[in-house]
Amino acid sequence: MPHEVLIVTEAELRRAVRLDLAAVEVVERAFAALAAGGVVMPPVMSMELEAANGEVDVKTAYLPGFDGFAIKVSPGFFDNPALGLPSLNGLMILFSAKTGLAEALFLDNGYLTDLRTAAAGAVAAKWLAPERVETAGVIGTGVQARLQIEAAHLVRPFGRVLVWGRDGAKAATCAADLAASLGVAASAVDDPAALVADSQLVVTTTPAREPVLKADWLHPGLHVTAMGADQSGKNEIEARALAQADLYVADNAAQCARLGELRAAERAGLWQAGLPAELGQIVTGARPGRGAAGDVTICDLTGTGAQDTAIATHALAAVRALGAGIRIAT
Amino acid sequence: MPHEVLIVTEAELRRAVRLDLAAVEVVERAFAALAAGGVVMPPVMSMELEAANGEVDVKTAYLPGFDGFAIKVSPGFFDNPALGLPSLNGLMILFSAKTGLAEALFLDNGYLTDLRTAAAGAVAAKWLAPERVETAGVIGTGVQARLQIEAAHLVRPFGRVLVWGRDGAKAATCAADLAASLGVAASAVDDPAALVADSQLVVTTTPAREPVLKADWLHPGLHVTAMGADQSGKNEIEARALAQADLYVADNAAQCARLGELRAAERAGLWQAGLPAELGQIVTGARPGRGAAGDVTICDLTGTGAQDTAIATHALAAVRALGAGIRIAT
Repeated sequence: MPHEVLIVTEAELRRAVRLDLAAVEVVERAFAALAAGGVVMPPVMSMELEAANGEVDVKTAYLPGFDGFAIKVSPGFFDNPALGLPSLNGLMILFSAKTGLAEALFLDNGYLTDLRTAAAGAVAAKWLAPERVETAGVIGTGVQARLQIEAAHLVRPFGRVLVWGRDGAKAATCAADLAASLGVAASAVDDPAALVADSQLVVTTTPAREPVLKADWLHPGLHVTAMGADQSGKNEIEARALAQADLYVADNAAQCARLGELRAAERAGLWQAGLPAELGQIVTGARPGRGAAGDVTICDLTGTGAQDTAIATHALAAVRALGAGIRIAT
Repeated sequence: MPHEVLIVTEAELRRAVRLDLAAVEVVERAFAALAAGGVVMPPVMSMELEAANGEVDVKTAYLPGFDGFAIKVSPGFFDNPALGLPSLNGLMILFSAKTGLAEALFLDNGYLTDLRTAAAGAVAAKWLAPERVETAGVIGTGVQARLQIEAAHLVRPFGRVLVWGRDGAKAATCAADLAASLGVAASAVDDPAALVADSQLVVTTTPAREPVLKADWLHPGLHVTAMGADQSGKNEIEARALAQADLYVADNAAQCARLGELRAAERAGLWQAGLPAELGQIVTGARPGRGAAGDVTICDLTGTGAQDTAIATHALAAVRALGAGIRIAT
């Protein structure tokens, strides 16, 4: 029986797949699947390559109800910039969930990861942020600072954005970029406490190892999404904020306890509520989301293989619809 | 900086890469690297997909001295034959060990795995079999029965082959195939005990869960390579044979204790010699190989990510030399 594998470059993926409500919806379905059971998601396979100053992570997840499962390889080689190459790369392979045959290779250099990470932020905002968000704040000034705010805007069409970063010039550039892409008022601010005070929705997008958002800054009607921590040792939110909030939600409870904000809180003895709610449980209604408009909510996103499977499945449909990619007969 | 990924199909790989001494040599170097240290080889990542009657394994290894590292994905979907598809598939991706960039995708459907598995058998025979082998026996009648004997013949050019399998017709076909490919006398036999008695080199290539080779059959001047067991529960060699032999060698001691012949022997309390020698230690001279011509030796091959990295590196050079494959600019 003839079989074809579709090879798709980053440029083609950028043309075919965008950060839009359809991408958010497929990632939301992945979280729902995680909560519903039947998901097979082994721990991340990791190699630390000291000799090459590099590391490689491999993630995968099988989700009932999805036609395929992705295997994602994410290398980080930190001597690359000296060679004129980016440190981070990456690709995904999508396999048929029915036959195990390879369907597509996405040479995305991390683009699909960027999308699925931002889409998870939109899912968190959709289910946890106050109905009415006038101002959104972002702490951090990188690619995810932009994408998280664009994603949140899909589900909470706020009119104003505040940006804080350690480097004021980068914060100003990020604000200008967001003003242009979203058509909203956007400005850099000097004080992260003031940013939080003025926002109903805040996203932290940094690789911080010391908290950049203090518990004292929490105020009624605030939602915070912390998406920077993805390794043990990273920590963006002051530990006591998690228990202080009305609701703390993990993308994956076990993983957040190892790699996310939950880790610091548990180690400090400041989280004793047992297993936290997971985002998929909020989506499916298995656990309640935001209660009152004045509640404080926090969502901890560490990134799951389930999101990779979702975005890869979505990308295959989008690429096929465009007739893009190179078909290889095997 | 422009970068290209080479996409290579099974047909092109079969044209470019053969089971020959060069393939054996590169796999031998991988075993030497395993023994020399500095290798990063995480445990296999596995998914059991009950809903799809399938399983997926992911293997990798970084080897000092190799330009690349492979990540291999091996799906097995056991309802495929009803769809006219093979149960087993698989592909490898080769990454630069210096930059982490993807160099090549080998859509090999398991062909490279077949080669590296057979090549390991040749390495075992080269270092452990008696200098003089007149008759080689094989237990099993599948693809590896053929390839293991062809591989062993590269390093021990015997003149006669005996084949035993549960299905006598398949054994006869396998013998005829080997007679044709090697130009040697080859015949199927009814009795595996007689096969072992008449051979100086025996390879077991079955998925047996009960021993197919008895300890009582061992005789002076015999080498046995057992390559069938690659999961806990599989077992080809009677447990007490391992300690009874003059030398038992594992491809990877920890893995053989989990997945190979060593597992059954340890569980039966019949292996108390501690960590066995590894094939790479024999290759590098860190531990002695065969002593006297009359020694009995056994080698237990469970398959390692190191072999995948070796054969993928070898394949890339061979494919480039032919100008084969499709180059994708990324």
